[in-house]
Amino acid sequence: MSQPALDILGIGNAIVDVLARADDAFLQAQGMTKGAMTLIDAAAAERIYAAMGPGVESSGGSAGNTCAVAAALGARVGYLGKVADDALGQVFAHDIRAAGVRFPSAPLQGGTPTARCLILVTPDGQRTMNTFLGACVAFGPDDVAEAEVASAAVTYMEGYLFDPPAAQAAFRKAAKVAHEAGRKVSLTLSDPFCVGRHRAAFRDLVKHEVDILFANEAELLSLYETEDFAAALAAVRAEVGLAAVTRSEKGSIVLAGDRTVEVAAEPTQVVDTTGAGDAYAAGFLAAHAKGLPLAECGRWGSVAAAEAISHFGARPQTDLTARLAAR
Amino acid sequence: MSQPALDILGIGNAIVDVLARADDAFLQAQGMTKGAMTLIDAAAAERIYAAMGPGVESSGGSAGNTCAVAAALGARVGYLGKVADDALGQVFAHDIRAAGVRFPSAPLQGGTPTARCLILVTPDGQRTMNTFLGACVAFGPDDVAEAEVASAAVTYMEGYLFDPPAAQAAFRKAAKVAHEAGRKVSLTLSDPFCVGRHRAAFRDLVKHEVDILFANEAELLSLYETEDFAAALAAVRAEVGLAAVTRSEKGSIVLAGDRTVEVAAEPTQVVDTTGAGDAYAAGFLAAHAKGLPLAECGRWGSVAAAEAISHFGARPQTDLTARLAAR
Repeated sequence: MSQPALDILGIGNAIVDVLARADDAFLQAQGMTKGAMTLIDAAAAERIYAAMGPGVESSGGSAGNTCAVAAALGARVGYLGKVADDALGQVFAHDIRAAGVRFPSAPLQGGTPTARCLILVTPDGQRTMNTFLGACVAFGPDDVAEAEVASAAVTYMEGYLFDPPAAQAAFRKAAKVAHEAGRKVSLTLSDPFCVGRHRAAFRDLVKHEVDILFANEAELLSLYETEDFAAALAAVRAEVGLAAVTRSEKGSIVLAGDRTVEVAAEPTQVVDTTGAGDAYAAGFLAAHAKGLPLAECGRWGSVAAAEAISHFGARPQTDLTARLAAR
Repeated sequence: MSQPALDILGIGNAIVDVLARADDAFLQAQGMTKGAMTLIDAAAAERIYAAMGPGVESSGGSAGNTCAVAAALGARVGYLGKVADDALGQVFAHDIRAAGVRFPSAPLQGGTPTARCLILVTPDGQRTMNTFLGACVAFGPDDVAEAEVASAAVTYMEGYLFDPPAAQAAFRKAAKVAHEAGRKVSLTLSDPFCVGRHRAAFRDLVKHEVDILFANEAELLSLYETEDFAAALAAVRAEVGLAAVTRSEKGSIVLAGDRTVEVAAEPTQVVDTTGAGDAYAAGFLAAHAKGLPLAECGRWGSVAAAEAISHFGARPQTDLTARLAAR
C-alpha cells in the first residue's frame, strides 16, 4: 500500500449557498421546517428567492465546506462533486480551488444549473436550508475517480449524497475502492430528516462500510430510532470503529472501541450556525491526519466549529491556525 | 410642484461585489493601489479572480449600496443602473428589490456581462477594488427615466458614473430633469483617483448642478487640487449649498452656508471598510428626508457607516433602526 497523496477526499453535493436573514414568521409563512434541510424543485427555488431578503452568495455544500476548512488547517484535500458549466459553477470551482483543494471534477454540460441552497438565518443564529439539487442529480458512479479515492487516506462523504438518485451508488463504489486500496471511509449523517429518508441504507453502510462516523445527537437518535442517547451511543460504538457525536454548546463525545473522550465546545458568540458540523468534521479529520490523539482531534473540531458559527456563512473567514494556537 | 413620491433616487454603476481576504503582498504582486478603485478589463478580471482567494458574492455598487441602506432606514428609494440579463444581473435585481428599493431599469441584452468588482480586504480592514464595468458601459441618457427623476426629492449620483463613457451625459440629463422639476441633485465624489480622472467635469458640476455634496478628505483635496484642508472646505462652502465631508475615525464635517456642524464617528471595530462612505450618505440623506437637523443627519450617517465597517461586505447585516435607537 502506497503512502496516500491526500489526507482527505471529500465527496458531496456541490452547492452555492444564498444566505439571507429572515424571521420566524417568514419561515412559517413559507411552510419551512426550522433548522432542517428541505429539498426543493426549480419552481420552489424561484418562488422562495423572490420572497426572501437580500442575499449573500458563497460556495457551500456540506463536504465542500469540510474540505475548505480542512485545507485551511493544513490538510492535503481533494473534492469530487458536480457543478454545471455556468456562473455559479465557476464560483464553486474557483472558491474550492482557491481554498487549496484539488477539484478535478468536470462540469456538467447541457443546461441543468449548478445546485443552490437558499439559507434563511433567523435572529437566534439557526439556519433553515432549502436545496435545489440541479446538476448534483447527475453525480453517479462514473464521477467517482478511482485513482483519487485510492490516493486518499480518508474518503469523506456527506449523508446528503443519498438524496440525488445516482449518488448512493457512487457512495458505495467509493467505499469499495477505498477499502480495496486499504484506505478509510468516513460519513457524516448530515441531517435527522435525511437520515429518516434513507435510514435502512444508512444503517447498512454504517455497519459495514464506515470507519469514521460524524453525527449530531438528533441524527444519531434518528439513525437508531431511539430517544435514549446512551442507547444510541452504545449502538454506534458497537458498529463503528471511530465516531464523533456533536452536541452543540455541550461539546462532543468521541467513541473509539471501549474508549470515550468528552470534548468541550469552544465558547463563542453565535451569529449563524451554517457549517458548524462541517467545520467540526474538518477539524477532527485534519488533526487525525496528523496522528494527534482523539482529545486533540475533538478540540480541533470544536475550534473550527466555533469559527464557523461566529460569522455569517459556512466557509472560514479568519485564520484558523491562529485560533488553534491561541489556546 | 407635486409632493415627491421618492425621497431618494440613486443612479450608479450596478455592480456585484466579489469580496476576498488578501494580504499586502498580494496587492503588491498584482500591482494594485491599496484603498483605491481601479478599472479593469475582462481579461484582467479573469486573471485577478484566478489568483485571488475564495470569494463571497453580494450586490454592491456605490449608489446601490446607498439606496439599500437608506431603504433600511425607512426612506422611500428608487435606483437606476444597468445590469445584464445574466445570473449576476438577477442577483443584483433581486437584492436591491428585496431591500425595498424600486428598480425599474431593464437588463441589457446581448452578451456583455453584469459588472463585477473584485474587492480585496486586507487585515487592516481596508478594501482595494478592481472594477470590470461590463454592462454599465451601456448606461446612457436614454436610461435616465425622466418620470423617476422628477418624482424624487433628491437624485443621488456616484462619481464613479463618470468612468463609463455614456454615463456623464446621463448624469447631466438627470441633473437637468431634477432641477426643472424643482428637485435637488446630490453627488458623491467616490474616489480621489476618480476625481483626478474627471476633475474638470466634476468642478463644473459641483459648482453649477450639485445641491448636496458628499466627499471624504482625500477626494475634496483632489477636487480643489490643494493640500490645505481648510482651503478645500472654504472652496466647497462657497460652491455648494450643503456638503458633508467624511474623515474616517475623525467623524464628519457638515457645511451649510456659513454654518459648520462637526459630527463624531461612532466607535466600532473595523472589519472591512467596503461601503463606509456609501452608508454615511444613506444615513445622512434618510435623516435629511425626514427634515431632521444637520447634526442628526450626520449622526445617522455615522451610525450607518459604523454598521457597514463592522462586518464583511457593503450592505447592512444588522437592524439599522435599532442601532439608531440605541443611542
